[in-house]
Amino acid sequence: MLDIFDRIKENPGPLGQFADYAEGYFIFPRLEGPIGPRMTFQGREVIFWSANDYLGFCNHPEVKKADAEAAAEYGMFYPMGARAMSGETDQHLELERQLADFVQKESCYLLNFGYQGMVSTIDALVSRHDVIVYDSDSHACIVDGVRLHVGKSFTFKHNDIASLKKNLERATKVAEENGGGVLVITEGVFGMRGMQGKLKEICELKKDFKFRLLVDDAHGFGTLGKTGAGAGEEQGCQDEIDIYFSTFAKSMAGFGAFIAGDKEVIRYLKFNLRSQIFAKSLTMPMVIGGLKRLELLRSKPEIKAKLWENVNKLQNGLKERGFNLGNTNTCVTPVMMQGSPVEATLLVKDLRENYGVFTSVVVYPVIPKGMILLRLIPTASHSDAEINETLEAFGAIHDKLVNGHYKAEAEKLLEEQHLSFKPI
Amino acid sequence: MLDIFDRIKENPGPLGQFADYAEGYFIFPRLEGPIGPRMTFQGREVIFWSANDYLGFCNHPEVKKADAEAAAEYGMFYPMGARAMSGETDQHLELERQLADFVQKESCYLLNFGYQGMVSTIDALVSRHDVIVYDSDSHACIVDGVRLHVGKSFTFKHNDIASLKKNLERATKVAEENGGGVLVITEGVFGMRGMQGKLKEICELKKDFKFRLLVDDAHGFGTLGKTGAGAGEEQGCQDEIDIYFSTFAKSMAGFGAFIAGDKEVIRYLKFNLRSQIFAKSLTMPMVIGGLKRLELLRSKPEIKAKLWENVNKLQNGLKERGFNLGNTNTCVTPVMMQGSPVEATLLVKDLRENYGVFTSVVVYPVIPKGMILLRLIPTASHSDAEINETLEAFGAIHDKLVNGHYKAEAEKLLEEQHLSFKPI
Repeated sequence: MLDIFDRIKENPGPLGQFADYAEGYFIFPRLEGPIGPRMTFQGREVIFWSANDYLGFCNHPEVKKADAEAAAEYGMFYPMGARAMSGETDQHLELERQLADFVQKESCYLLNFGYQGMVSTIDALVSRHDVIVYDSDSHACIVDGVRLHVGKSFTFKHNDIASLKKNLERATKVAEENGGGVLVITEGVFGMRGMQGKLKEICELKKDFKFRLLVDDAHGFGTLGKTGAGAGEEQGCQDEIDIYFSTFAKSMAGFGAFIAGDKEVIRYLKFNLRSQIFAKSLTMPMVIGGLKRLELLRSKPEIKAKLWENVNKLQNGLKERGFNLGNTNTCVTPVMMQGSPVEATLLVKDLRENYGVFTSVVVYPVIPKGMILLRLIPTASHSDAEINETLEAFGAIHDKLVNGHYKAEAEKLLEEQHLSFKPI
Repeated sequence: MLDIFDRIKENPGPLGQFADYAEGYFIFPRLEGPIGPRMTFQGREVIFWSANDYLGFCNHPEVKKADAEAAAEYGMFYPMGARAMSGETDQHLELERQLADFVQKESCYLLNFGYQGMVSTIDALVSRHDVIVYDSDSHACIVDGVRLHVGKSFTFKHNDIASLKKNLERATKVAEENGGGVLVITEGVFGMRGMQGKLKEICELKKDFKFRLLVDDAHGFGTLGKTGAGAGEEQGCQDEIDIYFSTFAKSMAGFGAFIAGDKEVIRYLKFNLRSQIFAKSLTMPMVIGGLKRLELLRSKPEIKAKLWENVNKLQNGLKERGFNLGNTNTCVTPVMMQGSPVEATLLVKDLRENYGVFTSVVVYPVIPKGMILLRLIPTASHSDAEINETLEAFGAIHDKLVNGHYKAEAEKLLEEQHLSFKPI
């Protein structure tokens, strides 16, 4: 009989196979120093483009003060247990009221963590008779939520309304046979390549199909829409989103999350989310700090304006230099280039070590083979100097890539070191 | 076709059906004031027995200082993203080294939240060919982890070694047919009724069966064993536990969690836990605060001694007064009484409002019909006065229950208010 540890040791998994080579640099890199647009990586100052702190709240003096004071007063343990047991406070309820109001919903419920909150939301909404239809590029937490579903589920092609329609037809048929309903799940913003989910068009399908819509707006909340209420507000269909979800790990510069919707449905979820009923309430400093962040979000529209000024400078500058940013229509700034994984690693090393620019890098199997995706997250905190320096650096590495510099280097390196990359 | 919201509204779920009646009092109660053995509930001071803060760390001046200083320096956002992306720091690695050492394992990995950390640990360990065998009283996070498993799984009767053996025989057969292995999952301490998992006996089965053992020691870590390393140390079989898991939400007075085991296996998990790869790293104040808590755990054995002094006083006092504490052999102190749900609610109200004692209450369907379970969590912070006052209060309500006081009151109330409880 097999020992499960033997299998694990033989097959380290999609990321694990690169562990020896990539750990500490390409994966699990350690950034040091105070958080912000300039941090230290391996002893060198780099311009840092990998924090989802869109509005720069993590360094805002009022936020820092609120976090510090709440931690001094309450520590990290307060409130004591799960919401249902001993973890409900007036401040939790107050933040819920204000968030509901902000995202234009009747009611809101805080979640102790976004990932498990989304998993349990999907789990609590559907019965085995229901059918889930979800975007094929959905975040892992949505995928795990769907995996708990014992009934039918269908994916539709990423942001493809024709494919969604086809799958809604199939789903409707199955749901009718089973006496169930249909839940559609998508994202407000797809975090990897920056396209907004086509929420408006999806909502219009409600004329022809009967379904409820759950939207994960992690990257939209705080960055999109007139007031910052997210992708639904931006597209003018917030009312048609039945359950609106966002994390606090992006614009809100923290952790935890919330769901918002009709009062009766949110109350049902409050009583039925397994990861919330059976695990600790969101810690008080994040609730009090959350109230401060939301206050700034409402009262200082100039911060979001500054964010978008930076987004436009960065994205236009990259486009002017001939870069392919795909179809992003959000702050997420993906730079797509052609090249092998070895070229990608050499390019990223060059960018970090010789140009002092740190971005995240995504390669196959997350994106198609032969593509290199560098992802930049501009924030309200980045300065013109940081944007310009970055644009110049990108210009330089682009020239090198096109001129075959990294390819030649890669071949030399592989020859010298008798290195080879396992086919993946 | 069904609208999933219609179903939700018709069936509010096992807890939701009592929402109107119980919310804010029996479920989602709001405790106020500084955390500790005396808090305020509905305007009245109560002795509070519902915080899993076993060692009283949440009020320890050094812990409060560490939390406050870390929050002031780093805020709640640091480090920036997922561990793999930009969320790894020297402090995370240092806490991992120290925790591994403390629980006598080679290696350790921090988890951003215990619930989803356990779900993903189970998910990452097994393939579809493997078989999971787990205790029937396992915590919801274990159940959800098993629910993600597409292969076979069997439950064994709670803490019943004969039942485990029978299920290991079945599991071995299936695993052999499928070319898979077997994973056994249990808890170090069952949090509801306080029995330790029979880890020693389970480990001895390794002589006859081939399996790996994953143990959730949420309530054992910090409270059991000579050094506080938990239920495995207490029972002298820590080495045989292949993956040791604990949350920080109990003895560590915080949130987040960790897994510990052999280096190669923990490294595999680091690269393959979906809820960790795709969600934010544990926040810095909890990591720096975690180092402080662990230092106290190691350097101040008198705190654990004080906890056990209180546990013994409370449990012996209750037993002397004739209470049934079941088979608890841990700090968890369940008080089991016979009575209907209505009697239970009147008893709990009486206890809270007239005797100033706040405990959690558990009724059917979590425990068998006709049983009332009040759960008390003694901590190192409770004083003799608080223990004695509580024992007196329990003596008084016990007399009333046995004399039919609550039963008579319940009948009167039901008659007066034409109330009836839905059968559940």
